Amino acid sequence: MSKASRNDLVLSVNAGSSSLKISLYKVLSPSEYKTSLAGPEPVELLLTSSISNISSPPAKFSFKNLSGESTGSVKGQSINSIKDHSSAFAHFVEHLSKEADIDRNRVAHICHRVVHGGDYHDPVVISDETYHHIEKLSDLAPFCISDLPTANSIAFFDTTFHRSIPSHIASYPIDQSVAKKRGLKKYGFHGLSYSFILRAVSKFYERPVDTLNLIVLHLGSGASVCAIRNGKSMDTSMGLTPLNGLPGATRSGAIDPSLIFHYTNKAGRISHDPDMAINLHVTQAEHILNSESGWKSLTGTTDFAEITQRAGEGSEVHQMAFNLFVDRILNYIGSYHLKLEGKVGAIVFSGGIGERSIELRKAVSEKVRCLGYNALDETKNESLDDDKAARVVGIDVRPEKDSGVESRILVCRTDEQFEMARQCALEDKFWHE
Amino acid sequence: MSKASRNDLVLSVNAGSSSLKISLYKVLSPSEYKTSLAGPEPVELLLTSSISNISSPPAKFSFKNLSGESTGSVKGQSINSIKDHSSAFAHFVEHLSKEADIDRNRVAHICHRVVHGGDYHDPVVISDETYHHIEKLSDLAPFCISDLPTANSIAFFDTTFHRSIPSHIASYPIDQSVAKKRGLKKYGFHGLSYSFILRAVSKFYERPVDTLNLIVLHLGSGASVCAIRNGKSMDTSMGLTPLNGLPGATRSGAIDPSLIFHYTNKAGRISHDPDMAINLHVTQAEHILNSESGWKSLTGTTDFAEITQRAGEGSEVHQMAFNLFVDRILNYIGSYHLKLEGKVGAIVFSGGIGERSIELRKAVSEKVRCLGYNALDETKNESLDDDKAARVVGIDVRPEKDSGVESRILVCRTDEQFEMARQCALEDKFWHE
Repeated sequence: MSKASRNDLVLSVNAGSSSLKISLYKVLSPSEYKTSLAGPEPVELLLTSSISNISSPPAKFSFKNLSGESTGSVKGQSINSIKDHSSAFAHFVEHLSKEADIDRNRVAHICHRVVHGGDYHDPVVISDETYHHIEKLSDLAPFCISDLPTANSIAFFDTTFHRSIPSHIASYPIDQSVAKKRGLKKYGFHGLSYSFILRAVSKFYERPVDTLNLIVLHLGSGASVCAIRNGKSMDTSMGLTPLNGLPGATRSGAIDPSLIFHYTNKAGRISHDPDMAINLHVTQAEHILNSESGWKSLTGTTDFAEITQRAGEGSEVHQMAFNLFVDRILNYIGSYHLKLEGKVGAIVFSGGIGERSIELRKAVSEKVRCLGYNALDETKNESLDDDKAARVVGIDVRPEKDSGVESRILVCRTDEQFEMARQCALEDKFWHE
Repeated sequence: MSKASRNDLVLSVNAGSSSLKISLYKVLSPSEYKTSLAGPEPVELLLTSSISNISSPPAKFSFKNLSGESTGSVKGQSINSIKDHSSAFAHFVEHLSKEADIDRNRVAHICHRVVHGGDYHDPVVISDETYHHIEKLSDLAPFCISDLPTANSIAFFDTTFHRSIPSHIASYPIDQSVAKKRGLKKYGFHGLSYSFILRAVSKFYERPVDTLNLIVLHLGSGASVCAIRNGKSMDTSMGLTPLNGLPGATRSGAIDPSLIFHYTNKAGRISHDPDMAINLHVTQAEHILNSESGWKSLTGTTDFAEITQRAGEGSEVHQMAFNLFVDRILNYIGSYHLKLEGKVGAIVFSGGIGERSIELRKAVSEKVRCLGYNALDETKNESLDDDKAARVVGIDVRPEKDSGVESRILVCRTDEQFEMARQCALEDKFWHE
């Protein structure tokens, strides 16, 4: 199989709890590559598809063909036959062949986003051998393999980007024999997103990736921050698991590690008397911190836009949640600014909240001015939608005399699926076996 | 009882696991007060005593009378009758009367340092009523009450200083009904130390307390950082318990809250499969993180001076522990610098390590220069012992033209016992009942 062959398509699939997002890319031959200082861009997006409401049927199917004819495009079609991720994928493949007239056998590789790479450093082809070593791999992968037997399924890991974090930052000060044996260290997450954003900013600045120092905020229902030094992750807010760091829609983020031990006890109040402690089961404790905390626990909603709106209307509870999130974000920006020795090319907002919350960007940008970041251009901040085509938008006031790339405020629409397809296309070993 | 009466002495006692430190102060009448911009100093130190090796007899008794005659002074005397903190205190009281010729009935109040104030905001007289509401109160208090029946025992809390932390910073994003019911929030610790340091810096700068923004590092075997804004705590690194924040001699400090759930599991490796998790008992888990972690777990020693020395000799393990500690300290300095809007009068080093580690102060000071802090004066940094009399010493290079108090690097010898006595002397309600 080679890039020049008829197997010239790559699928990126991203399975959520009740959704499936799929993007189909054409792999270009080297002569067709666009190349910038961010490196080659060897893939071209052909179409996107999304299936939502999988766990609350009927599922809704959308398919957007980006070619001139838009062949097969549909939006929000109710599909009764979709019962789970596997049948959702099957429906997509059927639609691809019958409505968009694309031969399923042209798909060379299917890229799966896997949150935790564990021992794996690099993307790995999912096989009988590797399958059981990959944590939390969706059940979709085996189905993809049987449904598209000519394509490889490849796992891409969100942890890979953070392999460069120095050991004194990634290590926890705990028994090192236990830490090594059980792999207890900071892994970091959202790595495919950070990798994409880094290259997008590199293109925007027209500067090589390895000259960039950035503080990137990936703010969604799961939220994290990454300090990038010379194009490499040097620290990030998530840790051994995605629980640590910033709070999220239902995650507590960083808390006193003792908190969970005091969450329930006989006395009804916090007590340091061991006899007063009631043991929570591990899974129950993790569930509370991952799924019953965050701003949902503060406000009752997981929708940050609603929190912002209600805060604006004067609700103290919502204002407190907003202020708490800003406070925690500033904790990391302050830390990373210092650890990058004050030489930061940009603070980059991304993720659903980072890309959409005018108020959050404003609140954070005002606070960081004291560190030398450009002032926010409020008009640009409020009119981002006008610039939908752009991947990266500067929302700051650039100084009269162009001072280069130092300390700007940017917004980047991230694209983990593109990142997987790009890495897949560039990895020779996947094309020459 | 009044300040003018014969009951003019205050004792401050500080009970460690195997030690007892006692300071005796004379309460001055208002006409005798020294008063500075830091407020009045209504007490004068008369003598100090320390009893060590209480749990590995024979205990060693020292007594230093600071009056001209040094009556009763002894150093490291082995005392076989000391079996516990109560008999240690009894020995001190006997020695006070017989050798130093001070009437025990002159002691009006005994100040006890209590780590966690829980619901108590202010110092409280220990009585039958309050005793059972004070967490972790040492067993010494009842003995003091029976041994010196004319004196009140008063609990002073390390949490009191942090009552000013705004709720969006002190709150954890968890179920708020549980949080309120059980008192799950950031309390903060080392408050008596921070309160002392704040006033010491106020005197040093000759500026009122409420004009000071400081980042104070209390670095000992337990270590924390406090951001002080306008003379009040606005954030601190410890949380619900002293476990959070900086690592210490045997404490992990901030870690991914999930870590402990993965510390032991059937698989031997980190696993997200709930069936793989083995439950640790709450007390065992807290014990691991509080007493079996920190730099002891990284290097085998709790002695930071040894870590620094071995790192200097080329030991990678010790260098990693040193670098890890610096990294975590920078996390907080960066955060607090930003949250104080870049207007920081000084970074203050204190606590056993902060006061003694030339290397740590050097490493941290070099890193913070990019934020505008003065350069370290290496000679001053290395010759602090020459200035033993001074409470606060500047170890930075002051600019040619005195730029005021902005962004200096200071070292402060902290004194929690003095702070308790000072607060006790000034609190009218303890003197007029």
